[in-house]
Amino acid sequence: MTSENQPRHSQSELPCVLSLKLPPSFLTFGDHFFDSPKFQYLKAYESPLPLPQFLQAHAQSVQAILASGAAPVTAETIRLLPRLGLVVTTSQGLNHIDLSECHRRGIAVAGAGTLYSADCADYVVGLLIDVLRKISAGNRYVKQGLWPSQGDYPLGYKLGGKRVGIVGLGSIGTEVARRLDAFGCSISYNSRSKKSLVPYTFYPNVLELAANSDVLIICCALTDETHHLINKEVLSALGSDGVIINIARGPIIDEKELVRRLVKGEIRGAGLDVFEHEPAVPAELFALDNVVMSPHCAVRTWGSFEDLRKIVIGNFEAFFSNEPLLTPVALDHLPHLSR
Amino acid sequence: MTSENQPRHSQSELPCVLSLKLPPSFLTFGDHFFDSPKFQYLKAYESPLPLPQFLQAHAQSVQAILASGAAPVTAETIRLLPRLGLVVTTSQGLNHIDLSECHRRGIAVAGAGTLYSADCADYVVGLLIDVLRKISAGNRYVKQGLWPSQGDYPLGYKLGGKRVGIVGLGSIGTEVARRLDAFGCSISYNSRSKKSLVPYTFYPNVLELAANSDVLIICCALTDETHHLINKEVLSALGSDGVIINIARGPIIDEKELVRRLVKGEIRGAGLDVFEHEPAVPAELFALDNVVMSPHCAVRTWGSFEDLRKIVIGNFEAFFSNEPLLTPVALDHLPHLSR
Repeated sequence: MTSENQPRHSQSELPCVLSLKLPPSFLTFGDHFFDSPKFQYLKAYESPLPLPQFLQAHAQSVQAILASGAAPVTAETIRLLPRLGLVVTTSQGLNHIDLSECHRRGIAVAGAGTLYSADCADYVVGLLIDVLRKISAGNRYVKQGLWPSQGDYPLGYKLGGKRVGIVGLGSIGTEVARRLDAFGCSISYNSRSKKSLVPYTFYPNVLELAANSDVLIICCALTDETHHLINKEVLSALGSDGVIINIARGPIIDEKELVRRLVKGEIRGAGLDVFEHEPAVPAELFALDNVVMSPHCAVRTWGSFEDLRKIVIGNFEAFFSNEPLLTPVALDHLPHLSR
Repeated sequence: MTSENQPRHSQSELPCVLSLKLPPSFLTFGDHFFDSPKFQYLKAYESPLPLPQFLQAHAQSVQAILASGAAPVTAETIRLLPRLGLVVTTSQGLNHIDLSECHRRGIAVAGAGTLYSADCADYVVGLLIDVLRKISAGNRYVKQGLWPSQGDYPLGYKLGGKRVGIVGLGSIGTEVARRLDAFGCSISYNSRSKKSLVPYTFYPNVLELAANSDVLIICCALTDETHHLINKEVLSALGSDGVIINIARGPIIDEKELVRRLVKGEIRGAGLDVFEHEPAVPAELFALDNVVMSPHCAVRTWGSFEDLRKIVIGNFEAFFSNEPLLTPVALDHLPHLSR
């Protein structure tokens, strides 16, 4: 019996995407958020099998992987999947994917593209104003009922005129620069190379950038080269009146050293959305009003997740139709892979 | 005996400025913050006399007043000072000065001019991003140690694309517009009249503005006309997805109605730096994460107080030298006085 309502493919004919772990967005949007009539998911997290056995059992089916920051794609996983041709991740960062192995095998990688850039840049500005103008701390002061008895709140610091140093002038860093320009900040940056079309001052290394900045904003990717890039020397160069904002990845900062300085008052303040061992956060910072912390929220808006849905599904559908990917990562251009 | 070190005037010869109350900034900067060698202060707050007797005792000396939001200049005070020629206030708002009486008597008024505009606008953006992206609430979540056990934080709302309605496009409102423009918001405003050189959409009344806005930002002066301007109808027009930010004056909003809506979830959130009966704040709001409150801090930065010092002293010195004031308030142009 045939009918117009019958699907063109039966479920078993559809190409398979491996989903390693329930993506965080599923908790908000439900299990079918990334569904498409053109492919099906093999959900490793629903199987009682340990991952290696699960992968061996489906080795000939898996053509693509849906990854997220919480679901790393290791070289071991990749080696068990001979037909793997694509990894799509829901996160801005790529440090959870073994890009060398993908590059070696010719496996394509698609990321979030510039999807999160505006939201991340908004969040940077929010954290920075919060630290300088003490908004979270003032909110607590009012909500604890202290205003009537303890009077005026301590003065904050002006944003206008601040020398802002951006570490990593990619798509997020550029959006940050554009926004802070409108507040009368002067913008400098450090990047792998000087950008020809950009009106901001370039510093060839982070140490020089920090020495010439009141505010240091971390917007670069986490790689072997940027691990603990913001170390004791850079924090010293930023100085005791400096402010640091990190919405990139925790391990880019030597967190132990930053915490030591914050506790000792050797730096003015910090806005931290990411941490070296998140969700574990240094408890020494809990009592500090000049530290604003958030639980990795810079990309987390309703709007960005709706857009993410279109990009993730679109990338898989393009791959299975032999069309160009929507947001491919140019692995050949990643400096630590292109040797 | 004469000496080059002797002052040109003895203290008693210097013209007198009445200081009604210790200005808030004195607590931070000390009692001599607004001192000048060209005039002296008569400090009513240091006298054991009740204010009317103090004023009567110095009626012939007082030529000017240093006022602040916490030190109102009433018609009664003005009537007791026949030689009064100038009121200088440290605050952005003028609602604590009886402007009608000043106007009638030909007494000049000098305010903070545009001194606070940039800081206020920065604070508006900070409050707005905080409310939309839940920064203060996320900070509390992390600092209470909830992240590891309770997991991902709820999604926030995008700032980009929001329709922002500015009530009062004066110097602060204009700075707010310029900033939010850089975030991809679309800007509209309501003002006493349409501004010819402004690219933003004008709505002739607040009700229409609210009906066409996702975010309503209060930047106007408090006058008889703007008291409870943001009432039940305007909040209804803004709707349950709306956000309101107030850095102007508390009584511009019908606070009871706003609190009712926030408690009932009939409005998405609020960022409030000012309150109808501050420092008293509605305790019903203390537990609401979508309400960010601050203790009247929008103007409070180290930089703005340093600039304020120059403007306050400069206005008094100009007055006593018969020079034009630095930041005169054009009383003739205030709508409720020019009839």
